[in-house]
Amino acid sequence: MTVNHRLGPLFTDLYELTMAAGYFDRRLFDPATFSLFIRNYPSQRNYFVAAGLQDCLQELASLRFVEEDIAFLNQTGLFRAEFLSYLKQLQFSGDVYALPEGTIFFANEPILEITAPLIEAQIIETFLLNTIGFQALIASKSARCVHSASGRQLIDFSLRRTQGHDAGMKVARSTYIAGFTGTSNVLAGKEYGIPISGTMAHSYVQAFGSDFDAFTAYADTFPNNAVFLIDTFDTLKGASEAVKVALQMKKDGHSLLGVRLDSGDMNRLSRQVRHMLDEAGLKEVKIIASGGFDEVKIDEAVKGEAKIDAFGVGTSLGVSADAPFADIVYKMVRYGQRNVRKLSPGKETLGGDKQVFRLCSANGFYRQDMIGLRDETFNAALPLLESVMESGRTVRPHPSLEDIRLAFKTNFAGLSDIYKDLAASTFYPVEISPRLRKLQQTLVA
Amino acid sequence: MTVNHRLGPLFTDLYELTMAAGYFDRRLFDPATFSLFIRNYPSQRNYFVAAGLQDCLQELASLRFVEEDIAFLNQTGLFRAEFLSYLKQLQFSGDVYALPEGTIFFANEPILEITAPLIEAQIIETFLLNTIGFQALIASKSARCVHSASGRQLIDFSLRRTQGHDAGMKVARSTYIAGFTGTSNVLAGKEYGIPISGTMAHSYVQAFGSDFDAFTAYADTFPNNAVFLIDTFDTLKGASEAVKVALQMKKDGHSLLGVRLDSGDMNRLSRQVRHMLDEAGLKEVKIIASGGFDEVKIDEAVKGEAKIDAFGVGTSLGVSADAPFADIVYKMVRYGQRNVRKLSPGKETLGGDKQVFRLCSANGFYRQDMIGLRDETFNAALPLLESVMESGRTVRPHPSLEDIRLAFKTNFAGLSDIYKDLAASTFYPVEISPRLRKLQQTLVA
Repeated sequence: MTVNHRLGPLFTDLYELTMAAGYFDRRLFDPATFSLFIRNYPSQRNYFVAAGLQDCLQELASLRFVEEDIAFLNQTGLFRAEFLSYLKQLQFSGDVYALPEGTIFFANEPILEITAPLIEAQIIETFLLNTIGFQALIASKSARCVHSASGRQLIDFSLRRTQGHDAGMKVARSTYIAGFTGTSNVLAGKEYGIPISGTMAHSYVQAFGSDFDAFTAYADTFPNNAVFLIDTFDTLKGASEAVKVALQMKKDGHSLLGVRLDSGDMNRLSRQVRHMLDEAGLKEVKIIASGGFDEVKIDEAVKGEAKIDAFGVGTSLGVSADAPFADIVYKMVRYGQRNVRKLSPGKETLGGDKQVFRLCSANGFYRQDMIGLRDETFNAALPLLESVMESGRTVRPHPSLEDIRLAFKTNFAGLSDIYKDLAASTFYPVEISPRLRKLQQTLVA
Repeated sequence: MTVNHRLGPLFTDLYELTMAAGYFDRRLFDPATFSLFIRNYPSQRNYFVAAGLQDCLQELASLRFVEEDIAFLNQTGLFRAEFLSYLKQLQFSGDVYALPEGTIFFANEPILEITAPLIEAQIIETFLLNTIGFQALIASKSARCVHSASGRQLIDFSLRRTQGHDAGMKVARSTYIAGFTGTSNVLAGKEYGIPISGTMAHSYVQAFGSDFDAFTAYADTFPNNAVFLIDTFDTLKGASEAVKVALQMKKDGHSLLGVRLDSGDMNRLSRQVRHMLDEAGLKEVKIIASGGFDEVKIDEAVKGEAKIDAFGVGTSLGVSADAPFADIVYKMVRYGQRNVRKLSPGKETLGGDKQVFRLCSANGFYRQDMIGLRDETFNAALPLLESVMESGRTVRPHPSLEDIRLAFKTNFAGLSDIYKDLAASTFYPVEISPRLRKLQQTLVA
């Protein structure tokens, strides 16, 4: 009934299952470790924000091939009965280390490391990449918007343009983690408890035929929750009609929340509208702007001293338009006792079970990260990957969305402003520990 | 259990519901017509392919606010009890005109026109935009790939990088409509009957530790369905191991289907590998290439005479990376007896209920489209918008996916090659009929 339904193990590339059949025939059941990470930064990105873990853990905990899944696989004619019987009883029994949602991370750092019997670890690849990659991308772009907005409110308006339904839900959640104050997405309000926001579209004004009639009617229905959209015909004329209706609302003991600008030169118009509102004694009425905003345009508006109190951020955020995918991969780094790495040109991986260590300066800012072996320790360095699942069971309840949001806020405060520049020209230092580096050399040899 | 679940009417921007409450209070129940169209071409697009109608009709036919939807809306404190009671009994009772899935269309042409009581027509906006926009975008990019591939097979490999789960399903369906031959997405195979495809990843080779062992094991499990991935360590060495195993398979009465290249200089490597296979008497073994392909790289490979029989197309297709969103909108064009248009700068709309007419040349190619009034007729012009829903009921069963695929093929054949150039530099002529133009002038005045 909601978009948070069970996906099931057929949400996968076929090769995960054909490989599994191959492993099964050769009895390759030893535990393998796979590492999930983003190989490279998209242009204009120099950090990422972890998101999507909750979906992963829920799906792993309930991973089952149900009767109709098996029936479909059988019908393909590709698989032997013995293998299908094996799948029928399969559950995920592995261990998961993960960056908590809301954690700032960098290219090549493991977001997840999964150790499980080879087949179990393999068949979840497609699902994990899909689930983590998109949410981390959106949370990262949202963080850039939040930084640009410099304290002004941001609202997710992207639902109509996201790449499908599930994306719309994930965008609402990921933007909220990164500090947005709300979303227009009602279902996200219901499912995740995110504050919802929105008032009227141009069609509303058109249905009434004039700004004044539309605003008056709206104020009747929502005397304490009204934001008027003022650009259907002409923004400044719309603003003066909004002033009239707002003054009447005031007389009646109510208050207009705000006006919304959706087209034109926002810097100029917002200052003119602010002036009109202030002159009329309506200093409490906020100005909300929407229409084509992203982190760069928000930055321009803030630096251009636009009189905008809140931004509705839509399309370019909801699809991460400047970087619509992450170069996210899931690579085998150990099979049984044998650490492994891939050597394809430009696609090398770091073999071995790993940990990410974060070193902080005395002032609390992050100084450097170190990717090391899982069992290493470093003085005054925080290990970032946490054990979240053992033998297929989650080790603790997942934090609430509010707690994740708070964790992001704290985490983001530790990232120095030099890494938050929109041009993303400075890269945060991530080193490989001497022991991990040495291991790689033995794997090459 | 599947991703084709009921979404429900809360999958919407809040303002659709607040507007509805406003309309309700003023008893604005007259029928309205809304037009859904793409305002502008993304750069490097000059045509679109209609897709997503089936999802829309299914959702409209079952649109209901269930008990828990109403409870959530009540809990927001925004809505009066009388309005919530109204929503509780609401069903979609409108008429829908739509371009059949698989139809080629152009900017500003209505994809859907919906006439329904104002509230019903309004609250479905967000859902319709989300559902049609993404699928049309992917079908359009897929058509570009199919044109570039010039008869070679294309397989959707994008599932791991699509923007969420639902996107992964929609990409599989939309690419198949536009002529792809299969998908790696197993769930799309089950849900839509699309042929599924895939064999092994690098991790498979790594688990065995050598190309030869991995290929031999795979051939044991899939003696008649094997494609070997040959670039885990070194492509040419991998190819010579594949030859050894393929010759053994031949001796045993089986046949290797193909080898897959996933990195390096594909033009050069594919020719070298083709030569090695041919020399060994393995002319029947196909070469499949994957890794970063999109319509431009496919075109380069085809023009560069790469010896590639099939392309696996992933990330850049699955997120439509060069154009990750369409400028798709849903605008009121009539309320009651009054035709309406929006005049915001750069966002003008065409008022009135409309039809799209396609004029063909004697040789069967499309010559020109005409956007006219719904009740106009033109000699030898095909009206493209079909009545698909009347009073909330679908007028006929939706065509099968195979029929939609065939409709696309026929449709695409009618589009002259000058419009299929990847640079998208020539725009197909779309005119406004004299009567429709005249109507717009009366609406301005």
